[in-house]
Parts: sequence; structure tokens; C-alpha cells
Amino acid sequence: MNAQHIQIYDTTLRDGSQGEGVSFSLADKLNIAERLAEIGVDFIEGGYPLSNEKDVAFFREIRQRDLGGTQVSAFGMTRRRDFKAADDPGMLSLVNAKTPFVTLVGKTWDYHVTEVLRVSLDENLAMIGESAEFLAQNANVIYDAEHFFDGYTANPEYAIQTLRAAAAAGAQCMALCDTNGGTLPERIAEVTRAAIDGLQEYPQVTFGIHCHNDSELAVANSLASVDAGATQVQGTINGIGERCGNVDLIAVIANLALKKTGYSVLGGRSLQPLTELSRFVYETANLQWRGGQPFVGQSAFAHKGGMHVHAINKASQTYEHIDPALVGNERRILVSELSGRANIVAVANKHGIDDDPELQKKILAEVVRLENRGYQFENAGASFNLLIKRIAGTFVEHFHPIKYRIEAGNVTSDSEAAFAEAIIKIRVGDDFYFDAAEGHGPVNALDSALRKTLDPMFPCLKEMKLVDYKVRVVDTGAGTASGTRVNIESRDGDETWGTIGVSDNIIEASWHALIDAIEYKLHKSN
Amino acid sequence: MNAQHIQIYDTTLRDGSQGEGVSFSLADKLNIAERLAEIGVDFIEGGYPLSNEKDVAFFREIRQRDLGGTQVSAFGMTRRRDFKAADDPGMLSLVNAKTPFVTLVGKTWDYHVTEVLRVSLDENLAMIGESAEFLAQNANVIYDAEHFFDGYTANPEYAIQTLRAAAAAGAQCMALCDTNGGTLPERIAEVTRAAIDGLQEYPQVTFGIHCHNDSELAVANSLASVDAGATQVQGTINGIGERCGNVDLIAVIANLALKKTGYSVLGGRSLQPLTELSRFVYETANLQWRGGQPFVGQSAFAHKGGMHVHAINKASQTYEHIDPALVGNERRILVSELSGRANIVAVANKHGIDDDPELQKKILAEVVRLENRGYQFENAGASFNLLIKRIAGTFVEHFHPIKYRIEAGNVTSDSEAAFAEAIIKIRVGDDFYFDAAEGHGPVNALDSALRKTLDPMFPCLKEMKLVDYKVRVVDTGAGTASGTRVNIESRDGDETWGTIGVSDNIIEASWHALIDAIEYKLHKSN
Repeated sequence: MNAQHIQIYDTTLRDGSQGEGVSFSLADKLNIAERLAEIGVDFIEGGYPLSNEKDVAFFREIRQRDLGGTQVSAFGMTRRRDFKAADDPGMLSLVNAKTPFVTLVGKTWDYHVTEVLRVSLDENLAMIGESAEFLAQNANVIYDAEHFFDGYTANPEYAIQTLRAAAAAGAQCMALCDTNGGTLPERIAEVTRAAIDGLQEYPQVTFGIHCHNDSELAVANSLASVDAGATQVQGTINGIGERCGNVDLIAVIANLALKKTGYSVLGGRSLQPLTELSRFVYETANLQWRGGQPFVGQSAFAHKGGMHVHAINKASQTYEHIDPALVGNERRILVSELSGRANIVAVANKHGIDDDPELQKKILAEVVRLENRGYQFENAGASFNLLIKRIAGTFVEHFHPIKYRIEAGNVTSDSEAAFAEAIIKIRVGDDFYFDAAEGHGPVNALDSALRKTLDPMFPCLKEMKLVDYKVRVVDTGAGTASGTRVNIESRDGDETWGTIGVSDNIIEASWHALIDAIEYKLHKSN
Repeated sequence: MNAQHIQIYDTTLRDGSQGEGVSFSLADKLNIAERLAEIGVDFIEGGYPLSNEKDVAFFREIRQRDLGGTQVSAFGMTRRRDFKAADDPGMLSLVNAKTPFVTLVGKTWDYHVTEVLRVSLDENLAMIGESAEFLAQNANVIYDAEHFFDGYTANPEYAIQTLRAAAAAGAQCMALCDTNGGTLPERIAEVTRAAIDGLQEYPQVTFGIHCHNDSELAVANSLASVDAGATQVQGTINGIGERCGNVDLIAVIANLALKKTGYSVLGGRSLQPLTELSRFVYETANLQWRGGQPFVGQSAFAHKGGMHVHAINKASQTYEHIDPALVGNERRILVSELSGRANIVAVANKHGIDDDPELQKKILAEVVRLENRGYQFENAGASFNLLIKRIAGTFVEHFHPIKYRIEAGNVTSDSEAAFAEAIIKIRVGDDFYFDAAEGHGPVNALDSALRKTLDPMFPCLKEMKLVDYKVRVVDTGAGTASGTRVNIESRDGDETWGTIGVSDNIIEASWHALIDAIEYKLHKSN
């Protein structure tokens, strides 16, 4: 039996941009569209041309790009009441977008029609039908049935009538939307079947599913609808979107391709670009990566428990549901208090010292010594990497820290008058450098002083920025007099890395974590 | 028909601590356990007493606490091969934990038995049976069937035999684990039914489900298993845990209580504490909140799209799947950034200002202003208390901070030579005090200088010490240049209290948190 092709319909650029903190520039949108076309999605919903000039420009620009077999769609609402479709500004903006597909959203839920739109149920059907008919003259029409599942529950006959109005007017695909994200999988399946049954007189019509994650069920709901007959899944990369987000297309694609049987996606292309695509979209949207994201997260194949790591070394499938390479991800062994020897050796072996038990022993001893002082390497893979290099003798010191001094305070009790300054002395090769910088706080001042000195000598450092800074008291028995653990997370274009410093003194701990962060980048780039 | 009670089994303290970056102190574990008991979970899996002293201490301490109807369970593996159960160190550590329940994990998957454990299939059955029998002499035994779903697929007969071995030996509940998180909901349901069918000769045995989120299906899988007959759900708060995490119990609880019919959870208690619990666990674990987390995330009921906001103002159910107040969360309209209104008023009312709407309004406005600057009062009840006193005019300033200056640095690159000094100026009554102190790090130096001056005047301060200190970057987009949030936890003989400071400058933020910590103690003692 041939596998059923499931269309992947990406709305990262439209519904995804409704997410908190998400704002794409025109260039961002074009870049993401090209990446989406590369992995082979069937549709890209590019924006809402009525709403802003940026989206109008997107549709103009995207026509110049070669997207292979990927189709672009413009999104808009049904005509306004008391307008003819041909005169409605929204309709005209969709026509002017000149996309091969248009996605028309209309109201399913009787309550919405009468209470929010404030039109009669019949007028809403006319708005759907006339809009679809007008748009179908120039483009293929996908009809997004907003609130389909809630609307069907409130008034099943009317909900089906709205779909029929769209189908009769020439819409080719009915995308059933769980707009509020509150529906359970079994109900999604049941109502999808009801929609398909209700449109038997339009055998050419296909069905899509559009889920939100408010009940943490968006992936299960999308899969349930596909099993019930939907052949298109709408969603966003990383599940970005309003409230709890849209369904994460990455999990949908991976589950359909790797877990479910009887379906094909992306024309059978490799899923290896998924991890890179995920990170590219986070970067472009300037959002934090979600470490635990299924399939593509940095922690998705990270192992910490000693029992697990012991087993993983014997056979990877024991604690991995798929081979991480299938989605372009990789296994990580975290070094932690719970892990013991097996983890440390596993990580060390990545550095090609499998055959050197003497070196392994030295590394283990050093890790134990440092852990006793409060180090935790699980979030500090870059510091661990440098540690191994130091012990193995492959560490190259790009710069040598000599001393630093910071001063901070306030002049009056007014917070605005707080200041921080740092003075550093380092050696690079045979030359000594002494410099100073101000900052927002002493750690930022130290970072600024180091970077002021080093950036001109090592231009690759300009690609790097600090993205997170955490402090934890190591032994909580003694407050600020205890050891202090500082974790710094840094990032460049293609990786994030963690470094650590531990000291009684938070500034000293930060200094060590900063130095490791920079040294790691220099090792990586040279 | 009576609703079926579904037991909530929390393993945040054990499986959750396997999550990347998660490390709980003993005090953290005890605090979380008390919160879990307050919301009414049925079971708390407290730790793995064989693995470390902290977990041994946890079980000793938790016996002194009143957890109401919540039961504590200790977790451990089956006896080692070639050991008698009564001589096995793991078995003995479980007995010594003296918990009313014990959770015994054993192997289901034949491949694991022969390739990882390297024992015969029969020996594994003996290990399960003898371990369960030994433990059942002193405790109720829950049997965690590791890799149950993968094991059942590989060898269904053997998988059922492992459960029978546990049941015959007296285990009361079979928790079926999707350890690798790779199973689809329909398969979870099918295999759960097969397990129940296979144990018909043990009618007293109940079934649990333990899911991981590697396919982003953990919630759906847990619900599917419950529909198939499982009456216990194991998971963690916020879904923290190894790789992609365990199932998020918050979503499970909310879906069972608010969405599914025929089930009851938490003895029918209100779900309003869920949002606060979620944030408490994130803060305690020093993890970033997940804004889009279903039900309890800060963005879960945040509305950005103009169309949505317009409709929300007409009728909230148009874009909200549940009333956010049901889970203690709040609607947020992103243009105005208002958050936490009900919580703030509720907390403020605890200070006896229920009858003063004008004062409530002032407090609310100040909290919104501070939250926009990065303050979060969940873990800073003492600072919030002082804030209310300040606005209500009942605050008594015991000392007035005027200025401070710190200096820190190292003399050479030798860490031992790091130093920190602080100079402070404060006013008490009409007198000015100027003093200096050294410390382990600048914050400790500031604390020492303040206490050197204040302790002789206010002897009650000698009862007080700082017990924890945490730093978090508020906006993680810009690393050390972002706002910094400092939380300090202090303690005297009968209470611990949290204070907060926020500033670009970590020293300034620490200074404010320190001052609040001392003022709170002075208010409390005078």
C-alpha cells in the first residue's frame, strides 16, 4: 500500500508571530521561508497582507525566490458584512498578494457569529461563500474553519453548513481549527470524521488540522486528526505562537515520519535539517532555545543518571527512542553528581582518549576533586571540554589572566547612581595588556574589559555573546559566606555553551567562568 | 456514577532531579514535599536512598513533617544478582528509609535483562519476586516496570511474566513505564489493556502509568492509559526530568479535573494553587519559567492578536479554553503587561486590608511597576510584606542605608588571593555610622559590614543568618548586561524568609535584598 502523503503547512510567519516576544523583520521572514522550502514543507503561510506593509512586501519579494515545490499562501478573513467581496479591502489585499494559494478564515461557532461579529447566521454563510468564490477566481483556496471543534459542539449542523458554504464556492481544503486549544484527542478524531462525513457531496475536498497547545495535547490532537482522515497539518516551527503556542511541526513531522506507519511527509526527504532549522528559527526570533524540546532540544538526548549512561554505553536504544542523528541532533552525556565514572569516561572518550586509561583516571580524579569543591559540569560542557584538554596537554592558552579588580557602589541611596568598574591585566603571547571598562554590574564590567582588549586580536569573538548568567550557593548552610557557583551560557551563530566558576567570592567565580567562555570560543574557532 | 479517583504520584524529587541543570538541596526537597502535600498529591517519591546521603537525610527529616494524607515512597532497584534480598545494600537502604510505600523498579525488556544486566530471564524474574516479597514485609510496594511498552513489543509474554512476578510477591500497583518516551497514545492504551488482562488472577492489583515526553505525547499517553484502566499517574511538576522530561503533572491534573469526565483527582481540591506551585518549583530548582507552559505559564492566557483581544473583551470563552482562575493563573493583555492581579490582591488581603480598595489599588500599581522591572514576589514574601507596610504607612525604618562601596579582585592569578571589601554608611535614628568589613565575596562583605554595625544595636539580629543566595538574569537576551534578580533566603530559630532585589548591577540588587532581609527580621522581632 502506498503511504498517504500528509501536507505540512507552516504558519510560523503568520500565526507564530502572534507569540509573546516574537517579531520578525522582512529579512527574517524571507530567510525563514527559504529554510522552510529547503526542508520541503508543502505550504508557507507568509502573513496577513491586510494588516501591515511588511507582509505586503513579503509577498512581493518572495515571488522572486525559488522555493522548489513549496507553495506560498496569503492569509485573510472573510469579507466584512455589508461589503461586496470584490470591494472588500481584505479580499483585495489577498488578490494583490498574488500567491498561488489563499487561506481564508471564517467563523464556525454560532456564538461568535452572533455575539462577536454581530451578524446573522445566514449572513455569515454568505460571507464565507462569497469570499471563497471571489478568491477562487485567482488562487487555490484553503478554508480555515476557526473554532471548528468548539463550534461543532455548540451547533453541529451549523458548523457543517459553514464548511459546505466554503466547499460549494470552490475551496479545496477545509482546515479544522482548534483555536482555543482545549479539545481532547478523542474528540478531535470524532469531529474530524463528522466533518468528512458531512462533506461527502464534495469528494474533491481535502481536510487539514490546525491545533494549539493549551492542553499540552497539540501533537496528539494533530496525529489523531490525521488518523481520522485529515491530510494536512498546520503548525509552526518550535510551536511558537500565541498563549501556549501552535502545534510544533517538528514533533509532528518526526512522529509521522519515524513513528506512525502509512504516512509520508516532506516528500520523503531526510529529517536531518530539523535540529538546525529549529535553532535557526529561535535565533531569528531572538527566543531562548527550549532545552527539553522533543527531538531537537539540546537535552533531548542528554543522559545524566549513572544507570542510564551505563546502559547507553552498552546499547544506545536502551534509553533513546530514536537515533538522534535522524533529526540532526546528538547524544550528550552530562557529568553530574548522580552519574559517576561511566558518564565521565563516555564524555572523555569523545575527545579520542578511549585508549588511554591512565589519562581517564587523571580526569576522573580531577572531576571528583572539583565536584567536592562545588563544581557541577552538567551545565558546563565547555569548561569540561577545556578541563580535558588541559589534562591531556592539548590546551592552547590564547590569553593568560593575571589580575583584575572591580569596584562597585552607589553614590547616594538612589539606585540610578549605582556604578561598576573593572580593571584587568592579561598577557597575550609575550605582551601585557592593562585595561579598564565600566559596566552594568561588576561582571559585565569584567566582560567588557576583557572583550575590549581581546576582540581586536581575535575577531571571531565578535560572533559571541553571553546569553545567561546564574549564581547558586553551593552549600546552602552558610549563606553568602559559602561557596558560590556561577554558570555562564554563551552563544554564537551555531552553538550555545556553558562554563562554570566556583569560589567563595562571586566575582572570582564569575571571572573563571568568563575566561572559560572566551577560551572555548577561541578553541572552537581556531 | 461515582467518579474514578486517579492517584497523582509525584516524582519531582527523584526522576525530576535527573533533569539537566536540576539539583535540589535537602531544604529544597523538604520545602517542595510540603507544597506537594498541601495541594493533595497522593504520593511523593522522595529519592533514591542508596545513591546519596542527601536522600537518606530526606527520608529521616520528612517523617517529622505532617503531610496530611500524602504518602511518601522511597525508590530503588531490584536486588543485585547473586545477592539475597535481605543482604542487598539497595534493599536495606529502602527498608531503612522507613517509608510507608516503596517503589521498586525492575526490568521488563528481555534485551535489557540479557544485554545490560547480563542475567538470565529467569534470574530477573527471581530478582523482581524476591525483592518485592522482602520489601512487602515492611511497606506497601509499587512496582515500576521499566521499559514496559518497549519490552512488551519485544516479548509480550515475558513482559507480562515480570508483572506477575511482582504481583505474586505482594506488589500492589504496577506502574507501566514508557521509559524512552517513544510510544504513541494508541499503543499505550492497547498495551495498558494487555497488562490489565494479563493480571486478571490478581484482582487486587492496580495499574499506574509513567510517561516521558520524548515524542511530545506524554500528556496524551498518560490520559490514554487512564482511559484504558490505569488509576495512578506518575510524573513531575512542570515536567522537569531527564531528556525531554517526565509528563507534566500540572497538565495531567488539569486535564483530568477540568476536561475529562468520570475521574477525580486531588480529592476534589481546588486547582488554584497550581500556578503558584509551578513557579515555586522553578524558582527552587533555579530554572527559567516556561512562558508557554499549558495552564500555568505566564503566556498561557496572554492575548496579543488584536482580533483576539477584541473578542476577549466581548466574551472570555471566545479565546480561552478554561477560566484561568481555575488554576490560579491570570489573563494578560500584552499591550498593558498587567499580571497577577488576583494573586496580588489575594496576598495583600492577608495583611488585613480587605476593606481598603484604594490601598489595594496602590499596591497593585506598585507591584505591576516592579514586575515590569523584573521583580517576582513568589519567593520573596518578606519583601512583599515590607512593600505593603511601606504603602500602608506601617513601615518603621530601623536603619536608613545611605551608601556603600565594594572592591574585589585578586592580587595574582592564584584564586586563594582573591579579596573582597565593603564600606557602608547608614543612619540609625539621628546618628550616622560608617564602617568597613572584609568578606568572602562582595555580598558577604556588605552583609558583614551591616551586621558589624547593627548587631550591637539590635541583638535579635544575632539569631538570623543568610541561608541561600540566588541570582538570575531577568531578560536573558543580553547576558551580563541585563537586569539581575537576586533572591536571598534568611532564617532565624522559627522561620525562613525570602527577599528580593533587582538592578542592572548585581551588587546593587544584592544590597536591596540584604536590607530587606534585615528589616524583615527587625519588624518581626520588635
